[in-house]
Amino acid sequence: MISNKMKDLVNSSSLIRAMFEEGKRLKSIYGPDHVFDFSLGNPNVEPPEEIVSAIHEILREESPSMVHGYMNNSGYEDVREKIAAYTSDTYGTKVGKEHIVMTCGAAGGLNIVFKTLLNPDDEVIVFSPFFSEYRNYANNYNAKLVIVPSDKTSFQPDLKALEKSITEKTKAVLINSPNNPTGVIYSHDTLEKLSNIIKAKEQEYGLSISLISDEPYREIVYDGKEVPYLLKYHTNAVIVYSYSKSLSLPGERIGYLVIHPQFDNVDEVMAALNVANRILGFVNAPSLFQRVIGKTLGVKVDLSIYEKNRNVLFEHLTQLGFEALKPEGAFYLFMKSPIADDKQFCTDAKAFNLLLVPGSAFGCPGYVRLAYCISHDHIINSLPAFEKLWQTYQNN
Amino acid sequence: MISNKMKDLVNSSSLIRAMFEEGKRLKSIYGPDHVFDFSLGNPNVEPPEEIVSAIHEILREESPSMVHGYMNNSGYEDVREKIAAYTSDTYGTKVGKEHIVMTCGAAGGLNIVFKTLLNPDDEVIVFSPFFSEYRNYANNYNAKLVIVPSDKTSFQPDLKALEKSITEKTKAVLINSPNNPTGVIYSHDTLEKLSNIIKAKEQEYGLSISLISDEPYREIVYDGKEVPYLLKYHTNAVIVYSYSKSLSLPGERIGYLVIHPQFDNVDEVMAALNVANRILGFVNAPSLFQRVIGKTLGVKVDLSIYEKNRNVLFEHLTQLGFEALKPEGAFYLFMKSPIADDKQFCTDAKAFNLLLVPGSAFGCPGYVRLAYCISHDHIINSLPAFEKLWQTYQNN
Repeated sequence: MISNKMKDLVNSSSLIRAMFEEGKRLKSIYGPDHVFDFSLGNPNVEPPEEIVSAIHEILREESPSMVHGYMNNSGYEDVREKIAAYTSDTYGTKVGKEHIVMTCGAAGGLNIVFKTLLNPDDEVIVFSPFFSEYRNYANNYNAKLVIVPSDKTSFQPDLKALEKSITEKTKAVLINSPNNPTGVIYSHDTLEKLSNIIKAKEQEYGLSISLISDEPYREIVYDGKEVPYLLKYHTNAVIVYSYSKSLSLPGERIGYLVIHPQFDNVDEVMAALNVANRILGFVNAPSLFQRVIGKTLGVKVDLSIYEKNRNVLFEHLTQLGFEALKPEGAFYLFMKSPIADDKQFCTDAKAFNLLLVPGSAFGCPGYVRLAYCISHDHIINSLPAFEKLWQTYQNN
Repeated sequence: MISNKMKDLVNSSSLIRAMFEEGKRLKSIYGPDHVFDFSLGNPNVEPPEEIVSAIHEILREESPSMVHGYMNNSGYEDVREKIAAYTSDTYGTKVGKEHIVMTCGAAGGLNIVFKTLLNPDDEVIVFSPFFSEYRNYANNYNAKLVIVPSDKTSFQPDLKALEKSITEKTKAVLINSPNNPTGVIYSHDTLEKLSNIIKAKEQEYGLSISLISDEPYREIVYDGKEVPYLLKYHTNAVIVYSYSKSLSLPGERIGYLVIHPQFDNVDEVMAALNVANRILGFVNAPSLFQRVIGKTLGVKVDLSIYEKNRNVLFEHLTQLGFEALKPEGAFYLFMKSPIADDKQFCTDAKAFNLLLVPGSAFGCPGYVRLAYCISHDHIINSLPAFEKLWQTYQNN
C-alpha cells in the first residue's frame, strides 16, 4: 500500500523504535530511576515563566480572530519586524522583516529551504557526524547527501575534504553549530575558510551554492562562548533557527529562518520560500506561538542546569579514561567508543542500564552520543554504571 | 537560484498575489467598507469562548514540560484516545487512538497521506471544481492529478466519468465534502456508488486504491443537513480533518486524520504516516493546541452567522437572475457566470468593487466562487453592487 520510498524509511525507523522499546522494557524491569536514558534530545529544563505570562497577555489584549487567524504565509509582519530588529541589533547584520519566514521549527525551516532550492539529483554537503534527519530531508526532494568528514581532534569540518567534494552538482552546504552530536561550535576561522572555499567554487563552476546553518542550539552555549554569526561571513547564507531548545518548546513547532539580504535573487527565493511553506502543508507557523515569540525575544531557559550536567559528566567520564571533547554548546557529549564497534559498545552499556546512541547513527562510527538533558540526580546516579562499564574493557 | 519546480509555482502564485494586491489597491482608493471582498476563505466568526478557557485551564493544571514538549509523532495518546472515542460515538464506526494522527491542519494531513501513498507518476483523481492546492500537494510527490468532472446540475461527482478514469496508475481518489467551492455535501448515494466503483476497480486491477476525504467543513452545514461518514462506506478510506473552520483556528494548524481500522496494511500505513509527519518537518501537530482539542471536542463556532449570510446572498443573487445551487455547507457560493468567460466576469465585477474568484481557479470555468465568511453588514452593503453588475449584462 505504501510508496517504495516510505517502505525503506519505515524499516529503518523501526530500528529506532526497537531501541526505544528496549529502553521501555528495561525501565519496566528495573524502574525508571535505575535506567539511565541518554538517548533522547528532549529538553528537560522547564520553559521560562515569561512564556505563560506572554500567552495570558495575548489572550487578554489581542483579538482572537487575529491571534488564531490566517496571516501571510511567512508570518505576522509585526513579529517578523521584531525578530529582524532583534537579530540586527544582537548580531550586527541588518536584515528586514522581508528576509524572515516564521517556520514550524527548524525541521519545517530546513524542509522549505530544501524544497525551494533543490532539483532532483542536486547534492547537499554535510559534515559527519551529522543529525540523521538531514538525509531524509534531502531525500524528500530527491537530492543526494554528500558526507564530508570532520577533523577527529577538533570536530571542526575538514575543509580540505570539502574542497574536493564540491562539484557542479553541489547546491548547498549544510552546517549545524553548536553541533548535534559533538557539542562543538564552528569557529570564526572555520566559517571564514568555509565561506572562501564556497565562493571560489561558485566562481570556478559559475554556480550559486547556498550555505545553510541549522542553529537550534545557538543559545545553548557554555563558558561565555559565542556562536559566530553566519550572515557576517557569507551572503548566499540562510540561518534556520528554532525555539525548541532555547525556550524548551519543542512540541510547539516554532522557529524562523533568516536569509542574507544580498542572497542571489533574494526576492525570488523569498517568494519561493513562502510558496513552499504553503504547499508543503505548513501554511504558516502556529499563530499563537508566533505572537508569544514577538513578546519574548531575548528570553532563554536556565542554562545552568545543562552546564552542571555537562561538567559532572565530562569530568567523570574523562577521569575514568573515556576520550571526549568538552562540549562548548548544545546538550550532547560525543565520546570515543573504547572498542571500534560503537554498536557493540552501546549493547555492552545496556547491560549496565545505560542507553547511548551509536555514532554510526550520525555517520561517524567509533563514537557514541550522550544527551545530558536529563535530571542532574539521574546523571549523578549513572556515574557508578559508567565506572563498571569502563572496567569491563580494562579487565580484557 | 531556485529549483525548476518552484519557478513555475512562484510564477503562478504571483497571479494570485496580483489579485490580492489589486484588492488592496481598491480598498486604499474606495475605503475597505466600499470594497466587497468575496475572495478569501478566512473564517470571520470568532473562535468559541471554550478555546480561551481551555488554554487557561491547561496552563494552570498541566506540567509545562508536557504541554510544550515532544510526544509521539502521531500526537498525545490521551488526545487521540478522546478523538477516537468522540468520532466512534458520534459517527458509529469504531476506531482507536492507533488509527489517528494529529496533524498540522488538513494541509499537513493531506501532505503526509500523499507522502505515504504516492510513488512518482501515480495518479490521484479529483472532481472538478476542486481546491487548487490539491494539484500542488500531488506535485510535491511527483504524482499526477487526474480531473474528473462533476454533474453540473447537482455538483455531485460524475461517477460514469470516474469509472472510465480509473487506471492501473490510480493510487487514490480525493473528495472534499462539504465542498469548496460548491458548498455541496456528497450524498449517501454518491458515497455508496463511489465506494462500489473503487472496489470493483481494485478487483479488476488487483490494486489498493485509497479514498481520501478532505473534511475541514464537516461541521459547517445548514438546515440540519448531515455529512455522511466515509468510514461507514469504505474501508480503504482516510478522513483528513481540520479545526481551522469548525473552531475558527486556521492560524494554529491543528487537525487530525483517521484511517479505517480495516485499511489494507493498516499498521504499515500508520507507521509510514508517522514517519512522514516527522521527516516532512511537521514532527508533530502543535502541542498546546492538541491539548486544547482534547478539552473542546464537540464545540463549534456559531454557525448562524454563516447561515444568515448564505440566505441573504443566495436569495438576492438568484432573484436577480444569477444561477447557483443553494450551498448545503461550507461558506462558499458557486455561481454560474452570466458570460462564458469567468475571468472576464470577475474583471467586470471589480468595476463594482466586487472581488470574486473565477471558477477556472478550481478547474471549472464558467463559474465564480463567492466566500461569504465576511460580516453580514458587508454582505448587505454589497447587494446593490451585484444588482448593477447584473444589469450590465441585461442592457447588452
